[in-house]
Amino acid sequence: MPNRITELFNIKYPIIQAGMVWNSGWKLASAASNSGILGLLGAGSMYPEVLREHIQKCKKATENPFGVNVPMLYPNVQELMDIIVEEGVKIVFTSAGNPKTWTTWLQQRGITVVHVVSSVAFALKAQEAGVDAVVAEGFEAGGHNGRDETTTLTLIPMVREHIHIPLIAAGGIATGKAMLAAMVLGADGVQVGSRFVASEESSAHEAFKKMVVAAKEGDTQLTLKELAPVRLLKNKFYNDVQELYKQTPTPEQLKELLGRGRAKKGMFEGDLVEGELEIGQISGLIHDIKPVAQIVADMVQEFEMAKQQISKI
Amino acid sequence: MPNRITELFNIKYPIIQAGMVWNSGWKLASAASNSGILGLLGAGSMYPEVLREHIQKCKKATENPFGVNVPMLYPNVQELMDIIVEEGVKIVFTSAGNPKTWTTWLQQRGITVVHVVSSVAFALKAQEAGVDAVVAEGFEAGGHNGRDETTTLTLIPMVREHIHIPLIAAGGIATGKAMLAAMVLGADGVQVGSRFVASEESSAHEAFKKMVVAAKEGDTQLTLKELAPVRLLKNKFYNDVQELYKQTPTPEQLKELLGRGRAKKGMFEGDLVEGELEIGQISGLIHDIKPVAQIVADMVQEFEMAKQQISKI
Repeated sequence: MPNRITELFNIKYPIIQAGMVWNSGWKLASAASNSGILGLLGAGSMYPEVLREHIQKCKKATENPFGVNVPMLYPNVQELMDIIVEEGVKIVFTSAGNPKTWTTWLQQRGITVVHVVSSVAFALKAQEAGVDAVVAEGFEAGGHNGRDETTTLTLIPMVREHIHIPLIAAGGIATGKAMLAAMVLGADGVQVGSRFVASEESSAHEAFKKMVVAAKEGDTQLTLKELAPVRLLKNKFYNDVQELYKQTPTPEQLKELLGRGRAKKGMFEGDLVEGELEIGQISGLIHDIKPVAQIVADMVQEFEMAKQQISKI
Repeated sequence: MPNRITELFNIKYPIIQAGMVWNSGWKLASAASNSGILGLLGAGSMYPEVLREHIQKCKKATENPFGVNVPMLYPNVQELMDIIVEEGVKIVFTSAGNPKTWTTWLQQRGITVVHVVSSVAFALKAQEAGVDAVVAEGFEAGGHNGRDETTTLTLIPMVREHIHIPLIAAGGIATGKAMLAAMVLGADGVQVGSRFVASEESSAHEAFKKMVVAAKEGDTQLTLKELAPVRLLKNKFYNDVQELYKQTPTPEQLKELLGRGRAKKGMFEGDLVEGELEIGQISGLIHDIKPVAQIVADMVQEFEMAKQQISKI
């Protein structure tokens, strides 16, 4: 399905595997790239030298293009960007920061830049900053999320109306049908997160993957909005946060409860009790752990079937 | 486009005009029914004898089927239901209550019953109660809303997976593209609210209609969750609620601030300062006030065009 997203990244299908913290290492990204979509390493949970190792292993594991997602809120972003340039990665997705900060610097080094937004205003800022494409991510997405709480179904057509550069939809997309729906709404491609958490190649802990598969509608909630809104599976840690809210906590008290390393503890080490378990609402529709190649093949097949079915309405 | 929703209601297009408080009187419902979709009166803002008057006027204004939306939380529901039966209305949408309470009673009187839900669990309860169809409404919808905060994009396929009766998608749908997207996701039809608020025939105050047209992405928010979650346009009243939240209000204090009659004051009387202004996120994509017939014609045309375009992907 050639379009401007497949051409931008030189991939077969307009699907991006999200670069998620504690999930998206070289095994996941290379499996994604080998399946004809764009694989992304998630640098948000990697020290600079860990990122370098993952890039090098990813290069060995695939000849296809892959990229790195870099949340710009960390102090060591310069180090991460230097490693990306040194290692010859050609695609960077930036998130959680001002798109002006890195876009030109990266593009001058031959890198394609995509910025992740959750509102029309930030999509316009990203376009003005000269990014090559925008990911617009809705309220249903797992992990960190925007303050407007705009859902994918409404965000995509509103962003499409305001920007002319390629648009990638994210949030709530785990199937070929949702991919088709997003493209009907004006997206050129989709970014898929939760579905790839429950893949064999994700670096998430097996216990977390199983909890994602067991999740039902209503099992996630956006919380910790005073710090940075984040969508979590409901577990003991989530309940502790809700209990603290009853006492009108200050942001400092929330930070203290959150502490450090909870996302790693939950998603990577499999502590389902005390860990922070980031996943999207669409986890309620994910019922198995599959190899990435199978996930991609199933999505593409369902996409084509849905296209056939819809033509008969 | 004949399908099981058009057959259930004997309408031309599988579109339902939502029965919204202070918006959905006989002018809107009859215009909708005359345009080939299902018009609904919104009984939630009508005294029993006002409802009778609207039903009688609607019968004179259209020969096509129309229905009544009845929120079941009011004390006078029995009176409303008696009037619906006496006046020979053949379609009732129930919301905000237990679907078991009225479904059999209504069906025994020859009435088709649809229940509005916002979660998989309640969709299953509605199906068990024997309703003829379910409306599944996502987080982006205007007005009162569910506690799970599940978005339309994720709710529809999850509900579709669990129920076999006809499914109507609601929340975030104002265009033919969104209608097609909802049907790709598994809906048999769509319920459209916000788009019809900004119609010539809606009984909303002109000032409120203009504010809906001026709304941008991010201008609504779900609030008052301790009472009943409701999505509102941000205005002075909304800001007053947010200020009160900073003082950790009890539900009683929230109720006191809300007071009585704010929805009427805002939407019907046009007090944009002190009124409660219920509208969906998709208001950011609504740019004009049009006659209902034009809204329907535009939606259907866009739906058909989107179907053509998607077949070329």
